Amino acid sequence: MLSFESDYTVGAHEKILNRMQEMNLVQQKGYGADVICESAKKRIREACECEEAQIHFLVGGTQTNSIVIASCLERYEGVVAAQTGHVSVHEAGAIEYTGHKVLELPGHDGKVDAGELSGFLKTFWEDGNHEHMVFPGMVYISLPTEYGTLYSLEELKKISEVCKSYDIPLYLDGARLGYGLMSKGTDVTLPDLARYCDVFYIGGTKVGALFGEAVVFTKKNMPKHFMTMVKQQGGLLAKGWLLGLQFDTLFTDNLYYEISKNAIDMAELIKSEFRKKGYEFFIDSPTNQQFFIMENEAIERLKSKVAFSLWEPYDENRTIVRFVTSWATEKEDIEELRRFL
Amino acid sequence: MLSFESDYTVGAHEKILNRMQEMNLVQQKGYGADVICESAKKRIREACECEEAQIHFLVGGTQTNSIVIASCLERYEGVVAAQTGHVSVHEAGAIEYTGHKVLELPGHDGKVDAGELSGFLKTFWEDGNHEHMVFPGMVYISLPTEYGTLYSLEELKKISEVCKSYDIPLYLDGARLGYGLMSKGTDVTLPDLARYCDVFYIGGTKVGALFGEAVVFTKKNMPKHFMTMVKQQGGLLAKGWLLGLQFDTLFTDNLYYEISKNAIDMAELIKSEFRKKGYEFFIDSPTNQQFFIMENEAIERLKSKVAFSLWEPYDENRTIVRFVTSWATEKEDIEELRRFL
Amino acid sequence: MLSFESDYTVGAHEKILNRMQEMNLVQQKGYGADVICESAKKRIREACECEEAQIHFLVGGTQTNSIVIASCLERYEGVVAAQTGHVSVHEAGAIEYTGHKVLELPGHDGKVDAGELSGFLKTFWEDGNHEHMVFPGMVYISLPTEYGTLYSLEELKKISEVCKSYDIPLYLDGARLGYGLMSKGTDVTLPDLARYCDVFYIGGTKVGALFGEAVVFTKKNMPKHFMTMVKQQGGLLAKGWLLGLQFDTLFTDNLYYEISKNAIDMAELIKSEFRKKGYEFFIDSPTNQQFFIMENEAIERLKSKVAFSLWEPYDENRTIVRFVTSWATEKEDIEELRRFL
Amino acid sequence: MLSFESDYTVGAHEKILNRMQEMNLVQQKGYGADVICESAKKRIREACECEEAQIHFLVGGTQTNSIVIASCLERYEGVVAAQTGHVSVHEAGAIEYTGHKVLELPGHDGKVDAGELSGFLKTFWEDGNHEHMVFPGMVYISLPTEYGTLYSLEELKKISEVCKSYDIPLYLDGARLGYGLMSKGTDVTLPDLARYCDVFYIGGTKVGALFGEAVVFTKKNMPKHFMTMVKQQGGLLAKGWLLGLQFDTLFTDNLYYEISKNAIDMAELIKSEFRKKGYEFFIDSPTNQQFFIMENEAIERLKSKVAFSLWEPYDENRTIVRFVTSWATEKEDIEELRRFL
Repeated sequence: MLSFESDYTVGAHEKILNRMQEMNLVQQKGYGADVICESAKKRIREACECEEAQIHFLVGGTQTNSIVIASCLERYEGVVAAQTGHVSVHEAGAIEYTGHKVLELPGHDGKVDAGELSGFLKTFWEDGNHEHMVFPGMVYISLPTEYGTLYSLEELKKISEVCKSYDIPLYLDGARLGYGLMSKGTDVTLPDLARYCDVFYIGGTKVGALFGEAVVFTKKNMPKHFMTMVKQQGGLLAKGWLLGLQFDTLFTDNLYYEISKNAIDMAELIKSEFRKKGYEFFIDSPTNQQFFIMENEAIERLKSKVAFSLWEPYDENRTIVRFVTSWATEKEDIEELRRFL
Repeated sequence: MLSFESDYTVGAHEKILNRMQEMNLVQQKGYGADVICESAKKRIREACECEEAQIHFLVGGTQTNSIVIASCLERYEGVVAAQTGHVSVHEAGAIEYTGHKVLELPGHDGKVDAGELSGFLKTFWEDGNHEHMVFPGMVYISLPTEYGTLYSLEELKKISEVCKSYDIPLYLDGARLGYGLMSKGTDVTLPDLARYCDVFYIGGTKVGALFGEAVVFTKKNMPKHFMTMVKQQGGLLAKGWLLGLQFDTLFTDNLYYEISKNAIDMAELIKSEFRKKGYEFFIDSPTNQQFFIMENEAIERLKSKVAFSLWEPYDENRTIVRFVTSWATEKEDIEELRRFL
Repeated sequence: MLSFESDYTVGAHEKILNRMQEMNLVQQKGYGADVICESAKKRIREACECEEAQIHFLVGGTQTNSIVIASCLERYEGVVAAQTGHVSVHEAGAIEYTGHKVLELPGHDGKVDAGELSGFLKTFWEDGNHEHMVFPGMVYISLPTEYGTLYSLEELKKISEVCKSYDIPLYLDGARLGYGLMSKGTDVTLPDLARYCDVFYIGGTKVGALFGEAVVFTKKNMPKHFMTMVKQQGGLLAKGWLLGLQFDTLFTDNLYYEISKNAIDMAELIKSEFRKKGYEFFIDSPTNQQFFIMENEAIERLKSKVAFSLWEPYDENRTIVRFVTSWATEKEDIEELRRFL
Repeated sequence: MLSFESDYTVGAHEKILNRMQEMNLVQQKGYGADVICESAKKRIREACECEEAQIHFLVGGTQTNSIVIASCLERYEGVVAAQTGHVSVHEAGAIEYTGHKVLELPGHDGKVDAGELSGFLKTFWEDGNHEHMVFPGMVYISLPTEYGTLYSLEELKKISEVCKSYDIPLYLDGARLGYGLMSKGTDVTLPDLARYCDVFYIGGTKVGALFGEAVVFTKKNMPKHFMTMVKQQGGLLAKGWLLGLQFDTLFTDNLYYEISKNAIDMAELIKSEFRKKGYEFFIDSPTNQQFFIMENEAIERLKSKVAFSLWEPYDENRTIVRFVTSWATEKEDIEELRRFL
């Protein structure tokens, strides 16, 4: 069935699979100590324009968030995030399982506001009782956010400055990073992330890979014995070269950007179709996730023809629905969708 | 210096110290297996009108919250609490340290609203993605709340019903329980708590004891091997009889109620003095914690004469201050305070 | 370079890669709810002759051990294992990270002895102080063990009986299970494991897959909300069908057994070569890991020609070395090795 | 009944109780920020001849071990201890509950051997795979040990040197410290502990206090925000001055030493009585815990007259029993015991 349910419903870009075939029986060192990982790291450092970047490949998003956060925080610290952040609501308490609190700020279409962040940190440090509280030890943001929205470069810089002034690292969840970077009109680039974030990850699972996320520590700040902590949390892949191979391919000849752009183009087509049919937009998202407000009856009808997500109830008769495109979405899919709208 | 800073600034009721002297060299079994604990448990069961109550004595409030919550929850569950709840903000992440999330609801003068709780639980269970989220596994409320406010019997019943309908236990933090039960006009009694809560604790530290909290499981629901988990969290007191002795004394001849009433009477006097002087009340608290809005200049002046807490900024020139009475506050203290206002 | 370093240095059986190519762009449900996983589960249930088996696919071995153990144990329980067990020594404390102790028994060439296990459990339960100790809540064994050795059916039955008599589950780590089941002379079969273990996993990473382990709960005993706990520990793969596809292929037409047999045949050839050359065997392993005692000088010479593992010092001049074969080892590799010995 | 069951069956030295009476209604700052704690810390620094010592008072032994170890270790580290160490066997997994492994060494009458420790650490660091293992991050010893034995100054120095050479802290559990320091013939003093240990605690619960242990960090190495971590683990006592008062009293006029000496004198009398009656000694302990081998029949008879502990079975007909004296044991008790032997 035609599906816009998510951006992780199919496999990988064919170049990745082909290369896997090629390399399949070549002996590699275990746990990411292989030459393919080295090559991939080099390419990512170049793409980030950050020579000192330290890179580690992990398998999935929740795993990455949990490992990065729990290995960077002191045990008396928590991570600050929007109430709607993935780490706050959709990771089954993975952060808390490692002993750390998620300190929630209001979410504005998924985004943290630099002013509110600054106020929160100021209030904490001025509170005479703060030794009885969880110390804010990291700030978590996502780009694109869970609502498909983007931080402008100015917003990113401001958040980064707040973090710097309180001496806590800024961590950016880039599960769908390619779609953010290729969004029309964004003024944020990969080197900007390397400049303003202390650590971020480049999502592979949702952007052309079978699986895999590339964690980038940008300030020579990878925690000591990071690999041991990855193992301790069950995230060390024996055949780490499989991760390296995927990122090496994605960061060759701009593949990551090109396939990301496809998702944006397809999302624009979807927006245009929904606009034509008069659907109400819940958020005007500039990336590959689109949120519309639909009559429940219309949903019932559409559901048998095309897969998509029910996001949350809007009112008694209407629901917010999500349509997602990906690197693999084709124009024909949109045309088919159009016929059902 | 005259102090209304908190209700834990002095020792214990003299009857407790005298009994400690008496029993000091009598051999007792360790870890709470002694006859004094047995007697104290019996008295508490009677005061609760709950024959099947299972009781365990612990040392302090945060310890109690952390042990009760972490031993009742499944590992994929979190505890629902008001954003202002002690477990949410003032326990240094003790709950998260045990691996569990505090799922925050809005606080209304410190209280959880039954309707909002019900809505939260409904939304969780109806969310098709809830297997990716933290399951609500317990509800935490405090009585009195951190703002000195009280649940009416009707409110308590409603929250209890919501919990029952979703089959999750209701836990009540009674760090200042005596002051809640002796508040003028409250319609909640100790047997009511035993009836409507699945587990609660009777605070000793702030109500006449040197230290100690009595945890009461009301439905034969004390977790299996609870003592082992208390030990595992470092909360098992070798000389457990010291806890038993204090509660045995407090629950003899209504001592707990009588000394609690003193704090209420003294709080009423303070309210009357502040009202006379025209101070603005932040909350009209019916218990032993009183919150006023004071000019920062006035605070500066008063601070040198009497100890009290700065709660939080109210606006640029004014601050919310807290004055607390206790079982040990005397009329003379209030008179002295009056002269400084 | 010629390598006998481990059984996870190359990719996957070609049938797996070919099928990945085929299925690459077919839309699948996320998180293992897809039809390929269903098919793989069915095949595994059949191979286990256990209709009620509940199966979940995970990515790697340490992850699997950590998730299975931490989701089966009560929080006051630990897992009993040999001192040499993978969970005891080579998982960076992954079990302890989840809050649980590994209760160590002596290892006999990697194996737990049923009599010692029984004695340990008896001593625990008879100890009047056991409420102050970690409760044994699960028994962990591996097959083959970390030393390549095997339990006989009789040994397995005895351990299983001890577990049953103390009402604790038996968990078997089958990271290299295929090599154990195909070992010449073993009398243990997959259905035996389903009969005598409460939970075990069938290793894919080391036996023909790119990655992946199939956890099998044999007694309708999969913990409630297991998937949520997998997510909580960061082990839930978005494209779960990749795991299903690999096991579906491995359990079609006996592929898993056939390729496992190759590793055994190759290991026998290695043993024969080493025997001919007069090397001393550290353990006479019947599976794909072979341990020899080598002069340090000989090691230096050999090391430049062929990769293998230094296991541990034997005495001042000699070291225990490990040579490992796999599903992908070829006769030519052995011949090449022979020339270097 | 006459009891030699443990050293925590009665209350506190009368000077402590009297001072509690005196100070009962004096207002004190909360959480240990009071003047009595300051005074106690000063006295302990003097007794340790260690001006830079940083001191924190906690309530009980398991709590202290768990908080000190979990706040000093990095998350990828474990604590090295004898297999018989209290943290290894009798704390219900409190260390593991905080996420850390206890790395067990053989116990020699309860003691760690410096040579074996050194070998263990060397092996770890030389193991090419140690990034996959738990890093040894602290060494735990007890004085007296769980078997009443003592380290000589020479032994202590050697262990300390091993720790220093591997740059890991040495932690000494002094639950019964007074009894060790007052043992006839020991050449270890409190200043020696301050010199050779990085952190240790002076036990109060078993040596004259109602409860309480004084943690001493000797090298300006108290972890940053230690108090917050104490709170996070539920160990922060609201009325911290109760702990200060007890240690202030114990370290005034050598009270701690004097009362400890009594326990040693009484233990010597017990040894003499048992020797006279021809009982076999399991260990020739120089401190307040005595271990004898008794016929099970004799135990049955004696048990009705006097309380003591069954330690562990010795053989089919005999059991190791433990008799413990304390600061409160009186000569009359020994005479009564003599009549029953």
